[in-house]
Amino acid sequence: MKSFATTVARPFDEVERRVRAALREQGFGVLTEIDIAATLHDKLGVDRPPLKILGACNPHFAQRALEIDPSVSLVLPCNVALETTGDGATRVAIVDPRALMDDPAFSSLAGEAAEALRSVVKSLGVDEDPGLHDR
Amino acid sequence: MKSFATTVARPFDEVERRVRAALREQGFGVLTEIDIAATLHDKLGVDRPPLKILGACNPHFAQRALEIDPSVSLVLPCNVALETTGDGATRVAIVDPRALMDDPAFSSLAGEAAEALRSVVKSLGVDEDPGLHDR
Repeated sequence: MKSFATTVARPFDEVERRVRAALREQGFGVLTEIDIAATLHDKLGVDRPPLKILGACNPHFAQRALEIDPSVSLVLPCNVALETTGDGATRVAIVDPRALMDDPAFSSLAGEAAEALRSVVKSLGVDEDPGLHDR
Repeated sequence: MKSFATTVARPFDEVERRVRAALREQGFGVLTEIDIAATLHDKLGVDRPPLKILGACNPHFAQRALEIDPSVSLVLPCNVALETTGDGATRVAIVDPRALMDDPAFSSLAGEAAEALRSVVKSLGVDEDPGLHDR
């Protein structure tokens, strides 16, 4: 799945705060939060490095998307994945909405949403190209 | 986005309870819940029929998927969309995990997850073909 991604050489909690602030600046609220590492520990006893998924949604974009095709509810909200890397840095990846809404009817809207989410990643300070990644 | 879907001629709350029970039976917990109608009303003052997105996750499937490719976190959990139709029935659509995990490395796992989610829709009593829908 295509994403905008970067790795920031700062601890997880600090990067999460910066991601949330940058999303807010682009009009995205965080509607959901899943601590995957904690969930897998609780349910399966599996230990893994920190991994959290934030569900980001800009209500203006969501409303326009639902007007185009209500089935967009199958791919809302946009996932923002935060994980600790081996060297203690934090990787942030945000799904590219153009990959989720690939119907041509969404192209203008998905392009605007992609630009906003790319700005979020860019604002974090870039250790890698904030362009498209295939993971 | 491909989905398994059905329409049940029962009220929203009752169908939601049945969906949650059927998901549990297939090993899926509901990790997130977004009341889209309430969110759009709060943020934009827009009134629309009830629409809720449940984020369903089977920890065994999730763990296996993360072992195959950690970037699967960009598409977790599986969305279950519930909405009231014009005639007061409730439509349930569950995203087909094969559409989210289209890399061949996921094909066996995505197929198993799809079968489980298709069972959820089938168990609701079927007013339409529980096979693949393109919305």
